[in-house]
Parts: sequence; structure tokens; C-alpha cells
Amino acid sequence: MAISLKAAPIAEVITEELRHECSHLAERGIIPNLKVILVGEHPPSVIYTRNKKKFMENIGAKCEIIKLEENISEAEFLSELEMQCNDNEVNGLFVQLPLPNHLSHIDVGQLVSPEKDVDGFHAENLYGILSGDCGSKYLIPCTPRGILTMLDHANVDLSGKNVVVIGRSLIVGKPMALLLTNKNATVTICHSRTKNIKEITSKADVIIVAIGKERYLNRSFLNSNKNQILIDVGINHDTNGKICGDIDYEDVVNECHLITPVPGGVGKMTILSLGQNLIAATKRQCEEK
Amino acid sequence: MAISLKAAPIAEVITEELRHECSHLAERGIIPNLKVILVGEHPPSVIYTRNKKKFMENIGAKCEIIKLEENISEAEFLSELEMQCNDNEVNGLFVQLPLPNHLSHIDVGQLVSPEKDVDGFHAENLYGILSGDCGSKYLIPCTPRGILTMLDHANVDLSGKNVVVIGRSLIVGKPMALLLTNKNATVTICHSRTKNIKEITSKADVIIVAIGKERYLNRSFLNSNKNQILIDVGINHDTNGKICGDIDYEDVVNECHLITPVPGGVGKMTILSLGQNLIAATKRQCEEK
Repeated sequence: MAISLKAAPIAEVITEELRHECSHLAERGIIPNLKVILVGEHPPSVIYTRNKKKFMENIGAKCEIIKLEENISEAEFLSELEMQCNDNEVNGLFVQLPLPNHLSHIDVGQLVSPEKDVDGFHAENLYGILSGDCGSKYLIPCTPRGILTMLDHANVDLSGKNVVVIGRSLIVGKPMALLLTNKNATVTICHSRTKNIKEITSKADVIIVAIGKERYLNRSFLNSNKNQILIDVGINHDTNGKICGDIDYEDVVNECHLITPVPGGVGKMTILSLGQNLIAATKRQCEEK
Repeated sequence: MAISLKAAPIAEVITEELRHECSHLAERGIIPNLKVILVGEHPPSVIYTRNKKKFMENIGAKCEIIKLEENISEAEFLSELEMQCNDNEVNGLFVQLPLPNHLSHIDVGQLVSPEKDVDGFHAENLYGILSGDCGSKYLIPCTPRGILTMLDHANVDLSGKNVVVIGRSLIVGKPMALLLTNKNATVTICHSRTKNIKEITSKADVIIVAIGKERYLNRSFLNSNKNQILIDVGINHDTNGKICGDIDYEDVVNECHLITPVPGGVGKMTILSLGQNLIAATKRQCEEK
């Protein structure tokens, strides 16, 4: 049976590291300060932002959720965002998505100052990944960062490994592929138009699935060596309302070496990445002063 | 024997298209205006910039080479660059590389305004590629753009094709991989740390080599179906001083379906891409006014 690569024990280690970092900063009089802009009361967003606030306070950082009315005008929303960007007391900033329809055309990632962009979606931060960085100089998107952290904790040396990324989104697939390339993996990006996908996945050492299709990847995608590593980014609800990933866990668990479960896997890592990005952003800002 | 996919006939078509575009713009009183900053007298750079100027004038655009002294101070250089960025009469702008040693740490691509960045290396333009664009909204790097143009002229439909890109540079490999992904190809990025590379290339429909190693790819990388498409980005000088590519042309020419020669292939396309980017930039700037 495969090893289940769970987030919980990694979260314990990282949380402790972040607490340590915060207390070091506190000795210098610095408390990392995160602002989260929440427009409206979309229930999952209310829960997500509350969890993020709780986590940040738990590690010793500050976090304020700035609640804006659902029907706020575009001008008022942009002006609030700009004010937070310009506030020197703010170290990290992001807008909780999704935005209400009348604001959803705004590419908020580009409006947050890159040095405060803890979500890692500003063009300047993505340029960092393109130019070879893995987070040492730039802020990197939270989900890919979380996956790298998991692989690192499982002692997976990515250099020379064949990694297949299924999904080509701006949020996960593309930055993930670039980061893995920077880590010296040989990366193949697959997607809905890919032909002979099972031939490709059967050759992979690591498969990362990020397409949002319940239980898409099953044992027919794998080879018979039982040595493949499977990373499941999907969080879907099946027809019974049960949470499941993009991988059919039950079907593959005896056919691979290591697999991240859903829930309790990659999804739990993003908040840790957010914390790491906040600390990194704060430290860089203090060095610059 | 493979078809030799040469730049010359494509160049004729594109040059005509660009002339057409320029004369349309001229009817509206607009002459696309390119500025090239050349620091020092590095002989190849002098030739490249002269060729670019000649080409732009040939299609009906303006092009001025701004020659700066080899030993110009960083402050003076940056101030000249900023002046050109702020000049509303300038539609396209780039700095000819390499810069002299004392300036080589400057990432000039990030200092050119994105809307004038005909080289396509500004973070905002690369963000465009990451978010799925293939040049319709953003300016894209010249060599990858030239390769897409060649494949398009050879009627290669990239959708669902397995494409292997060898090389992971910011200039060619990475933007090329993203553009091909946007064109619905399934892309694998290989590099110096890749294991079993010949197994990977033998499965490819298209192989793009951009590593700067003379005659690196030979027939041992190919399958026996003689249907593969080979794109050679390298321009190397062999031990006899002869120009050659990253592909051993003589060795593979009877083993593939289509191949770009060196010289006379991809290298000749970049100037056309530069022209296309200049026209695109000019048109977008005029629409915005």
C-alpha cells in the first residue's frame, strides 16, 4: 500500500518554523502584517479568510480582514486596494477571490504591489519563476509552493525526474511546471487536448493532477512498478456530496509509491505557503529599509 | 529527404504583409517608430542593429540607432533609456545586447515600457503568455514568435501534438514551451539534467533545440518513422569556423519529415518577429489614444 503523504505532520513542522521566524522578527520590533480584502459574504470565502487570520495570529503575525460591501463600486474598491498597497505598515496583501460579478474583470493580482503580493500572482513574481527562481528572491504562488514543500518533506529529489503536470492553469499548472523545471525536473504539461496521455503518465516518476475533475486519474494511467508519486491538487464534491480529489485514491493506492490524500493533502498546504510568503515578504521589506 | 523549412520564402510573405500594414498606418499619418539603443561598438551588434534598421525602413517604418559610448555611466545610460520610454513619438524600443560589463547587471527588458517592448521580455508581456496569450494582446519574444510563424507557414497544426523543447532559457525555451501549450500542444521541456532524453525525443512530433551546442541532436534521437519535425534554434561556429546549428543537419536530413536549416532558418525569423511586434505595438498605442 502506498505511503499517504499528509499535510498535517508537515504543517506542524512549518508552523513551528514560522512561529520561530515571527519571534525573531518580534525581537527586532517587527510583527508581520497581513491584510485580506473580502468583498461580500460568499460563505466559503468567509471561512477561508477566517482560517487564514487564525493561522497568521497563531504563528505570531497580524492579520486583518477588510470587509467591503458586496455592492461596493469599482472606484471605491480600487481606492481601498491602492490605500493598502501604499500603507507602509502592511507587509502582505491579497484580495480573497472570487469577486462579485461586477468586479470579476479586475485582475487584482496585478494591482497588489509585487513586494506585498503573498499570493504570488503579480507579473513581477511570475517573471521571477520564469527567470529560474524557486522562491528565494520572489514570492511564488501558494499551491505550487505547497507542493514543492510536500515533495521536499518526503525527500523527493526532483533533479532529473520525469514529472507530468496535468492542467495548464495560471494558478497551478503553468507556475508548477516552471518551478519544477527550475528544480531540474523534466516536465511535461498535459491538458484536455493531450493525446496518448496514459502513455505519457505511465513514464512519469511524479504525476501532479490539477484539473478539477473528480477521480479522473485511476490505475490505468500508471505503470506496474508501483513506484510513482501522485500529487492530487483537486478538491471536488462527488455526486454524494463527498469531497474527493482529481485522483481515484481507492483505485490507485495499491499501485503507486506515494500519494497525497484529499482532503488532508495539498489543499492544507496553501495556508502554510501563505504564511511563508508573508514572512519572506516582511523580511525582504525590512532589509530594504 | 526531409523538406527544408527555410526562412526566405516566409520572409517574403511577412515582409509584404508588414509593408501593407505600414502603408495602411501611413494613410492615417502614422509611421511606426523604432528606437534601438546600442552601447559601444561590439561588431556583431553593429551589424545586427544595422540590419534591423534596414529592414524597418524597407517595410516603411522609422528606425533610429541611438549610439552610446562604450564607457557611458550607468546613470547616463538609464536616463537615456527612460527618455526614450517617455517619448510619445517612440512606438518600439529595445537595447541591443550584450551590454558592456559595467552595465550587464541591468535587466533592460524590465526598464522598457511594456507597450513598447518589441523584444517581448518585460514581465507584463511574459505574464501575457502565462495567461494564455499567443501575441494577440501582448508582445511576445521574437525567436519563439518566429518559430510559431514558421510552423504556421508549414501548416503544422500544433493542437494535440507532442512537442519537445530542449533548452530552458528565459529567451527561448521557457516562453516557447508556454506558447506551444497555449497552442494546445503537449509540451515537454528537456535540459542538461534530463535523463533518458532520446526516449523522450523519439516520441515527439516536433523537436525544438535551443541549447547552443553544435550538432548536438543527431539521428539517434529520432524514431524510424521519418515523420518528425525538427526546429533548430542554435547558431554555433564549429571547429572549422563554419556556422552550424544545434542539430546535425547532414545526419538527420534523411530521417525526418521537415527541418529548419542553419543558416537560413530560425535565425532569419527574429527580425520579422521584431517587425510584427513593432506594428502590433504601434497599432495598440494608436487605438489607446
